[in-house]
This record gives sequence, structure tokens and C-alpha cells, in this order.
Amino acid sequence: MRKILVIGAGRSASSLIQYLLDKSATEQLHITIADLQIENAKQLTGDHTNASAIALDVFNTEGRQTAIKACDLVISMLPARFHIQVAKDCLQFKKHMVTASYISDEMRALDQEVKSAGLVFMNEIGLDPGIDHMSAMQIIDRIREGGAKLLLFESFAGGLVAPESDNNLWNYKFTWNPRNVVLAGHGGAAKFIQEGSYKYIPYHKLFRRTEFLEIEGHGRFEAYANRDSLKYRSVYGLDDILTLYRGTIRKVGFSKAWNIFVQLGMTDDTYIMEGSEHMSYRDFINSFLPYSLTDSVELKLRHLLKIDQDDIFWLKLEELDLFNPNKMIGLKDATPAQMLQKILMDSWTLAPDDKDMIVMYHKFGYELNGVKKQIDSNLVVIGDDQPYTAMAKTVGLPVAIAALHILNGTIKKPGVQLPITKEVYDPILKELEDYGIVFHEKQVSYVGYNPQNK
Amino acid sequence: MRKILVIGAGRSASSLIQYLLDKSATEQLHITIADLQIENAKQLTGDHTNASAIALDVFNTEGRQTAIKACDLVISMLPARFHIQVAKDCLQFKKHMVTASYISDEMRALDQEVKSAGLVFMNEIGLDPGIDHMSAMQIIDRIREGGAKLLLFESFAGGLVAPESDNNLWNYKFTWNPRNVVLAGHGGAAKFIQEGSYKYIPYHKLFRRTEFLEIEGHGRFEAYANRDSLKYRSVYGLDDILTLYRGTIRKVGFSKAWNIFVQLGMTDDTYIMEGSEHMSYRDFINSFLPYSLTDSVELKLRHLLKIDQDDIFWLKLEELDLFNPNKMIGLKDATPAQMLQKILMDSWTLAPDDKDMIVMYHKFGYELNGVKKQIDSNLVVIGDDQPYTAMAKTVGLPVAIAALHILNGTIKKPGVQLPITKEVYDPILKELEDYGIVFHEKQVSYVGYNPQNK
Repeated sequence: MRKILVIGAGRSASSLIQYLLDKSATEQLHITIADLQIENAKQLTGDHTNASAIALDVFNTEGRQTAIKACDLVISMLPARFHIQVAKDCLQFKKHMVTASYISDEMRALDQEVKSAGLVFMNEIGLDPGIDHMSAMQIIDRIREGGAKLLLFESFAGGLVAPESDNNLWNYKFTWNPRNVVLAGHGGAAKFIQEGSYKYIPYHKLFRRTEFLEIEGHGRFEAYANRDSLKYRSVYGLDDILTLYRGTIRKVGFSKAWNIFVQLGMTDDTYIMEGSEHMSYRDFINSFLPYSLTDSVELKLRHLLKIDQDDIFWLKLEELDLFNPNKMIGLKDATPAQMLQKILMDSWTLAPDDKDMIVMYHKFGYELNGVKKQIDSNLVVIGDDQPYTAMAKTVGLPVAIAALHILNGTIKKPGVQLPITKEVYDPILKELEDYGIVFHEKQVSYVGYNPQNK
Repeated sequence: MRKILVIGAGRSASSLIQYLLDKSATEQLHITIADLQIENAKQLTGDHTNASAIALDVFNTEGRQTAIKACDLVISMLPARFHIQVAKDCLQFKKHMVTASYISDEMRALDQEVKSAGLVFMNEIGLDPGIDHMSAMQIIDRIREGGAKLLLFESFAGGLVAPESDNNLWNYKFTWNPRNVVLAGHGGAAKFIQEGSYKYIPYHKLFRRTEFLEIEGHGRFEAYANRDSLKYRSVYGLDDILTLYRGTIRKVGFSKAWNIFVQLGMTDDTYIMEGSEHMSYRDFINSFLPYSLTDSVELKLRHLLKIDQDDIFWLKLEELDLFNPNKMIGLKDATPAQMLQKILMDSWTLAPDDKDMIVMYHKFGYELNGVKKQIDSNLVVIGDDQPYTAMAKTVGLPVAIAALHILNGTIKKPGVQLPITKEVYDPILKELEDYGIVFHEKQVSYVGYNPQNK
């Protein structure tokens, strides 16, 4: 039996563990699931013969090292900041490691030692980062191998509610960490390149400079720019590319309505609101509007943001019950962003039967023998149910598949890695298709940002 | 002879030193002016018999302590962060001290020792902070002594160009540190109270929520909110006040045009622009606009910010030559705010003959015997010339007058002080009138924010 230790039995571990358990007989696997709360781990092992659940506090060195010593490979599904302790143990006890998180500076610093030890520490192998890397690099490498020059790479991803569960005016529900959604775009201007020019969008304009994406059979989406589109420029070997843009996908109309919160200052997370524990939904909105004895909060808001009386997106605000003077937020010493999150969670929390949806969209512009061409590739995944959501599948399955390949020696390049080489992406993308995670690719005419290219 | 040491012979020291030299014969004063560049000091002493100039590096402990030991009172006109070393020496050698800067936490921590030593460390006694404290507290104390209850205090100040030198469309020139003007409002939402409700304005809305001020004989001004209007609430004894607002004064129309820079993201000081050293004015503006092969920078800007073809404030942008493709900014590794400052300095630098202007405006709303009343008080000061600007007069004269009163024992309350007591503000405001720094006060009907109060 090969022994896999999975640390962290949270939301994203369900499909991962199901995959490993399903393979455990044919692949001779024993899975140990470790969580601070052993109940969480037990829920995922069920009474499977090849699985066991243990309680593990990752800050308890003895318990952590005992568990790591006893296995052949560790999958850490902990929050990213906790990986480094696990990684150091894996190095000491010569175990492979897999995570779905961004490579931290601390993790990167281990690269030489991991290489010397002949170990594979595979990171960024979830959905985003993960499937985005693999699906992009597979096509980028193919285009390059064909002798073409890359001109444009745009990549978009989003976690949404599935159409069958989409019953609010925002066409949105929280399918992942709500706090990250409220704070999306914070921390500086968005930066990208269009046709060789660096472009910057300040946060307060981000949600008004969206672009549309059309996916056959799924309709129209919109995307706003991520903060740093250039992060993977060198990693992907695209240092000379003219257009590089990464964005977040929403259903059409979301961003324009979200922009109201941004304009009012409700997504600010840098200060505590005075008397937050005694504020109603209406008080909260009124804090961002001028005082008036006579004018209503509604009219002050319409006036400040120039919202027409018949603008349909006003209904989106009403749907959230934002103007209710009797509903209390009930948070003490809270920031505007925390208050807003609380209000949104009333309306945007997934119901038990709700399904989620993952959408990804890549555009690759290139020039081959003097002719400009473009490949578009997209992915749509609908969740089965909870906890086997689209998010859990797309994050967990690549992790699980990679872990098995590392154990089997078919992914073997040592070091602190991310999945951008053929050795990794080809077998994993192939196998993901068996689970309904299938990219649809088509050749389109290259437009770029120049109408003359039409 | 009483010996005064003035450290720092910068822009704000001219009127201060002139005052002290003028008084030196009758008041038996000797003034030593210390500066890193002795030439700066010499320019201000001239060949006056009661003055001497010395070179002083404030980080050279020996030189600093020698100079401080030799005097009776130290005026520090250094940048605020350098006061603390001087203050510690003043404490050690038992010298009084005066600064025009905000009291830092380090300075405040010396209060007990300063008191025990029977010394006066008077701070915040320039214009703003300084004249604002004194002129406000004089009226607040008078209203309170009359048995009334304060309902509202609004206070506005601004450094502007004098009408006779006002020859650009913005009605604005840099009369003080340009960087502070470009970064005004940064660092978080503006916070204030209106009729008992806390109100917040995010930075990107700050310049669109101005209010108008009318000053007889000087026309109409506008003001945008300062970041923290509540800073002096307790210091002024206004803990129960219903409306508290502080703002910055500009000529009407400035803020609406400035808002263009804010909306585009040009006042951001948090990141370095790629290739900034090779950017023209036009390239700079284009960095914040979407790419287009065919559309002009002008039209893209008009479209993004919805600026009508015939909107007069477009001319303000043209006046700055913002769309010039041949004029280079020429700054390496610069932030947007630094690039913008460079562009504005072309147009907004005071010419040698230009005069500046200081405007201050207070509103005091109160209730006396069940009747609501209001006092408005304003100050307008025009500069004589350079370096005897309105800014130098209003910053330097209160410092100099306070220094003399401390030497003469008429300001004597020991400790780390700011000028909010009658002992301080009465004689200083009185004497400032001799220099044309005169507040005009009138009783007006109380409006507040409630039309029903009309």
C-alpha cells in the first residue's frame, strides 16, 4: 500500500478524496485524512477500508511529524500560509508534496533542497491557479511548436452559480470565500498590456471597464481585470507578447451593479465604522450619503450616483433589502467591507440544493507565416451537488491526479514546481475529461484590439 | 540680550525672522539662524546687528547641542519628523521651544518632563495648524461663556493664488509643497459628523462632494472634506457636537476638474509606472485609457469620463498641455502621482512676481435660550511678495509672537502645548491684526443641514 496523507478536510477536499478512495483498490492506496476537527475528516472517509481519519493540529510539531513520517506523499489543503511547516517536514522526511496554492517566497526558497532530495513539491495545481496554467500552456506550447509567434493571451475565470440555481437578479451567489469576493480588486491599480502598451485601471474604475465573453450554449458573460495580469508573463515564456490580460468572470450586469458599492465606499476594509453594532441596513447605506432631514436615502443615492428612476439595476439593490431600516447588521467594530459581506450573505448564500458553476475562457492570438490567427478555448463545469461542487471538483481532482502520477513516477521532475510542463499537463488534462472537465477549443479570426486585423 | 535660535531657514522662516529682527532692539533679542546651508541663513540675517547665521546639521549632536545650550528659546522650523531631537536637547538644557507642526506621539510623550521642568513647548502655532485653532477657540469659548450650546462647527482653510496673480483656468497655483496637493485626501475615507450621523466619503468621491463658501469681496469658493474632521473634537471640548466638518478651500470649479485625475488613477502614489522615463504627457494620460488603434486619446478620455464636447472644464486639461505627444515627463521609476506633479509644476509654479493668498472660514452654530444662531468668521490674507508670502506670514508670525510671549513670561503654562487657551490666543490674535491678519465675523441665521431651521 502507498500511503497518502491529506491535511485539511475543508470544502475543497471532497472530490479530491473521493477520487483517491475510488482509485485506492486498483492503485493500492491508503488515505489518511487529517483535520483539526476529526469529525470533518471522518465525514470524508466514511467507512472506507482504505481510509482513516486522524485529528491533527498543524502547529503541534510532534503530531504533524508523526503523520508525515508515516506516509509516502502529503497533500496539504490547509490555508496557504500553513503549507511551509508541512513542506519543511516533507523535506526532512523525504516525502513528496502537493498543494493547490500559489508558491510563496518561503516555499520557493526550498527549491534547491527539494531538487537535491529528488522530491516533487507540486503547487498551484487546483483550478485557478492550476487548470488555468495547464490548459493555457498546452495550447501555448502547441502554437509555439507549430512555429508561430504569440501576439495575445487573455485568460478569464470565475466561480458562479449554475443556471438551474440562478434565481437572483445579480446572477451570482457565493460559491467560495465571500470575503475574497467583497475585496476583489483591492490593493492597487489593475495592470496589463494591450498591443504593447502598459495600461492601468484604478480600483474605483475596475468594475466599469469590463469586456464581454460569449460561450456557446451558456450565453454572455463579462470580465473585469485582475490586479496583476503580468504575474506569469515570464513563467509562461511570454516576455515579448503584445497583449496580456487576465480577468474575473461574472454574468453580464453584475459589475455595473457592484460598482455602486465601490463608488459609495462600502468595500473599504481599512477603517472601523463608528457604532457599527447598532446600524441597520439603511443606516449603513446612509453613512455614505450626505445628511438630509427630508430627502430619502433612496433619492440621495440615486442622485449621488446618477441612477435613473427606471434603471433596472436599482432592483438589484432592492433585492438585497438594502433600504430596510429595521434589519440590523449586528457586527461590532466592523469595517464597511465586513458590513457589506454580512448583508450580501443573506441573499447570496448557496441553498442546500443549489449547484455552482466554474467558467474559464482563454484567447490565444498568434502569427503564423505572416497570417494572424486566434484560438479561443473555454471550460464550463457544473457542480454535482454539495459538497461535490464544481469548485471542489476543479480544485481537488487535479491535485489528486497529480498526487497519483507523482507516486507512480510519471510526474517526476524534482523541485518546487507548478504545472506548466507537458509531463504534467498532458496526462492530467486528459484524465480530467473523464470527469466532465473538458475544454472546448475553436479557431476564430484574430481581432486583437485593432479593427484593421478584422 | 535674550537669545533665540531658529533652526531651519526655509520658505516659512522669512516673516518669522523679519518680525524678530524688527523687535530685536526694543525687546533686547539676539537671533541665531541655523541651517544646513549657511547661505540660506545668511540671506535672512542680512547684515542685521542682532542676528547671526550658523551652519547646522541637526543630526550632528555636538553642533546641535552647542547651539541649543547657547540660547534661551528654540524655534524649530525643520520638517516635523526632525523636531524630536531638538526637543530632547531643549528638555536637557532647559530651553523653551516653539514649532508650527502637529504634536507627534514622541513629542506628546515628553509632556510630563516638560511640565516638571517648567518649560513651554508650544506646537501647532502656524497657520493650519495654528491660526485655525486660535481663531476657532476664541469664538467657541466666547459662545460657551455666554451660556450657549455648540451645535455645529465647520472649519475650512486653503492656500491659493492671489486674484491679481490668478491667470490660469484652474484659479490655482502651488503656494506650498506640491506633493501634498497632489496627494491630498489620500490614505482612507474622509470622516465627519452631520447632525449627529457619522458620514464617510471614499477618496474617489471626495472631489465631487464639495460645498460652496461665499466671502464678501472675494467671491465664491468651494471646499472638499479633510480626511479626519474629528481629530480635534475632544481637544476643543466638542464631544457632544452634532456637526463637525473640516475642509480644504479651492476656487469654484477646481475640484470637478481635479476629479478627472482622481478618476483616471493619476494621483496614485503606490506603484511605479513601467517605462516612465520615456513617457510623453500624452503617453501618461493614455496609460489610463483603453487601447485603440484609431480612437484619439482625447475621445477615449471624454468617453470614459462622460465629458461633453462643450464642457468648459475640458479647457483646463488643454491648458496643462496634457495631450502633447512631444513633451516628455522625464522621470525614471516614477509613480503616477509624481508624474502628475511634474506636469502640473509646468503650469502652476508661482512666477517671481506672483502673490499668494490664504483663506480661512469658520462656521459656529449654537443654541442660546432655545434659539438657534450662527456666527461665520473668515480670514483672507494676500502675500506681500516672495519670500514674504501670505503663507510665510500666517505660518511664521504666530510662531514669532508666541516665542516672544514665552520669553516675556506672558505665555507661561508649562508642558507640550497647542494654542487653544485664552492666555495664548487672545494676545496673539490681537497682535496679528497689526500685520493684516484680521478675521471678519458676522452673525448669520442658523441653517445647519436642516431646511426647517431656516
